[in-house]
Amino acid sequence: MNYTSMSKQELLNEKQVLCELYNNILSEKLSLDMSRGKPEKRQLDISEKILTVLSENKDCFSENGTDCRNYGILDGIDEAKKLFADILDVSSENVFVGGNSSLNMMFDTLMRFMVFGVSKEAKPWSENKKNIFLCPVPGYDRHFAVCETLGIEMVNVPMTKEGPDMDIVEELVKNPDVRGIWCVPKYSNPEGVTYSDETVKRMAALKPASSDFRIMWDNAYCVHHLYDEETPLLNIIDECEKAGNPDMVYVYTSTSKISFPGAGVAVMASSKANIDYTKSIMNFQTIGYDKLNMLRHVKYFGDAKGVKEYMKKHADILRPKFEMVVETLEKELSDKGIASWIKPQGGYFVSLNVLEGTAKRTVSLCKDAGVVLTGAGATFPYGKDPEDRNIRIAPSFPTVEDLKSAMRVLCVCTRLSAVEKLLESAK
Amino acid sequence: MNYTSMSKQELLNEKQVLCELYNNILSEKLSLDMSRGKPEKRQLDISEKILTVLSENKDCFSENGTDCRNYGILDGIDEAKKLFADILDVSSENVFVGGNSSLNMMFDTLMRFMVFGVSKEAKPWSENKKNIFLCPVPGYDRHFAVCETLGIEMVNVPMTKEGPDMDIVEELVKNPDVRGIWCVPKYSNPEGVTYSDETVKRMAALKPASSDFRIMWDNAYCVHHLYDEETPLLNIIDECEKAGNPDMVYVYTSTSKISFPGAGVAVMASSKANIDYTKSIMNFQTIGYDKLNMLRHVKYFGDAKGVKEYMKKHADILRPKFEMVVETLEKELSDKGIASWIKPQGGYFVSLNVLEGTAKRTVSLCKDAGVVLTGAGATFPYGKDPEDRNIRIAPSFPTVEDLKSAMRVLCVCTRLSAVEKLLESAK
Repeated sequence: MNYTSMSKQELLNEKQVLCELYNNILSEKLSLDMSRGKPEKRQLDISEKILTVLSENKDCFSENGTDCRNYGILDGIDEAKKLFADILDVSSENVFVGGNSSLNMMFDTLMRFMVFGVSKEAKPWSENKKNIFLCPVPGYDRHFAVCETLGIEMVNVPMTKEGPDMDIVEELVKNPDVRGIWCVPKYSNPEGVTYSDETVKRMAALKPASSDFRIMWDNAYCVHHLYDEETPLLNIIDECEKAGNPDMVYVYTSTSKISFPGAGVAVMASSKANIDYTKSIMNFQTIGYDKLNMLRHVKYFGDAKGVKEYMKKHADILRPKFEMVVETLEKELSDKGIASWIKPQGGYFVSLNVLEGTAKRTVSLCKDAGVVLTGAGATFPYGKDPEDRNIRIAPSFPTVEDLKSAMRVLCVCTRLSAVEKLLESAK
Repeated sequence: MNYTSMSKQELLNEKQVLCELYNNILSEKLSLDMSRGKPEKRQLDISEKILTVLSENKDCFSENGTDCRNYGILDGIDEAKKLFADILDVSSENVFVGGNSSLNMMFDTLMRFMVFGVSKEAKPWSENKKNIFLCPVPGYDRHFAVCETLGIEMVNVPMTKEGPDMDIVEELVKNPDVRGIWCVPKYSNPEGVTYSDETVKRMAALKPASSDFRIMWDNAYCVHHLYDEETPLLNIIDECEKAGNPDMVYVYTSTSKISFPGAGVAVMASSKANIDYTKSIMNFQTIGYDKLNMLRHVKYFGDAKGVKEYMKKHADILRPKFEMVVETLEKELSDKGIASWIKPQGGYFVSLNVLEGTAKRTVSLCKDAGVVLTGAGATFPYGKDPEDRNIRIAPSFPTVEDLKSAMRVLCVCTRLSAVEKLLESAK
């Protein structure tokens, strides 16, 4: 049943079978969406009590007596810093607690680098002739969009099962125009890969030609495990310090997929020098972020252990979906030689690699059948998947039933576009 | 009792009296703060019910069914846009609802101008040799700090009782390096001046040499009246459109001094073209701001009329403080020829002009006596008051009792430093 070893006639027969299946699907007039990496309603419902954890005036004071309703405190209330410091396994002095969006913090970080430089002594990136960022692929489209918006050129770095190919990264950072790299180190978007200890150590020990080089470490899924047994990730801040590169990394995370995506709390962690430098500029950008929402989160979750326990509720909702996606892929595609994937242990996505040159066609066939997927190419800089093979599956938002239908359609379309492709060169 | 017509001996006698008064104050070992333009606890307590207006999962949906807990909607939920549109007397399509800080929106606006320019066609300001902003003085220190941070040169424009001196503004905008002007058009910070109709019309009809010229219209105190009879302000967005300058102005306000300074909702209004351009960039900065907090505000206040009614509660707390400040100034300083002030009809400050060359000394004498005031010079670009005469009084935060003590000290220090100054040149 391996498509790649089929004769032309066998492929033609298979195509006929698949076309019939596809036509039946068309007649179902489906309307399903597997494109959105966002929690579903039941996940949001878990956090109901966070709404009322501050319900009277007297609840609005922080441990040290600060009235969180009023102005002040640029980098967040102490107990919020402590909570996130514990989650990220760093010290409170390394933490800046912000608004509701870590993407906003990342964008603003790069804006600061463009306008002010990476430190008081450094030159603004806008004065450089060229700025290049390394982009492990497949990766997160919004990271790439930030670079594109800011005119930062992007260079692809292939992902391995241990993270970005470090041989290539080590080679590329010898170029003095290379100013940084995007990383989603745990349960990566979209593959679900967690960087190995060796990858983290090599990343932290990079000797880039540009002293401006910064690692944008988007640890979005730091506590987003699907199973009790967690996949460990080395602490990049510790490793950078050990390697003599204390200022080389900025870490980001948020409670967007812990409490509420639209009303969570985002955080940034870095060396004390980087945090101090950031504050020296942000001091003129804002008086401070929403301290009541920080306090809500601290009072609701208690501590890092509380967050960890709480995440099991999300996992219980997400796990059956991820397992269904992977089981369907295994059942429908594993023996056909036209697709590969990794079974994620956490995060929000499953990454499907289809036969080279068929991702766009597959997504388009799905769309015509009423199943919306993330656009093919979205997981690559400039939206260009050079091999046209990666498709990002987002299982979190639809119901299990809808997901089952959508996956059935995706598998038929993957097979059909593979057969079409193979027929092009079949003799 | 006019100090300026006193003989040397009269001044020496007066000095002796004042020194005794000052020494008595020193022995009181006061610790008072009149520097902070923030609401006091009773004002924050008014809004207690906003904490629980969303208390169950089912409360978290907007009118059109959007789950405000989840991702999405860059420019704010419809009903929040409507609320702010009504407050600012513009259309919803002119409104972008943001996070908790209008200062943050202003900073980000100028950052966008620096990195991307004022429109798709325009050149980034960072590529200009020089960027100049006009700064009506006295004004808001944080506006000036934004310019200084971004390397935008500042030029003072004197305030009149009708707003910035428009003869001077009209002259200065002929300089093609002049890119904008800061305005607090209603109950201005710190003088409490509301721009006259003529000022607004002339501002809207400016013909600046630079097509990049933008008016930063910080309408922070748009509903912050102290009395039932409001001081009207012409609608700058309408006037700019009438004058053929629809894209020349950005308007800002927030609920920081309506609900909670640390956890309010900020908003920006401008032409549809400007809002669309802003969104085209911000689309890569964030997925959206805290929609739950927007919804809280809409559900709590209902509509613009609700906000207006609600502001009377703030006025009832603030009015006695402002009146006490002005009455004390009148009683202690009105006949001495060494100070002037305007009685504000709204806003958060009273601006005191002392004898030229004595503001720093006055603030310093107050500090030594345990009364903290905003630093002399803070109301001018670069912290430099060329005449060393303006002092900003912030009556909102202290209790009436504390304010009374602080004002007593301020008046003695104002008189003492004036006498010292006059003695320098007395014969």
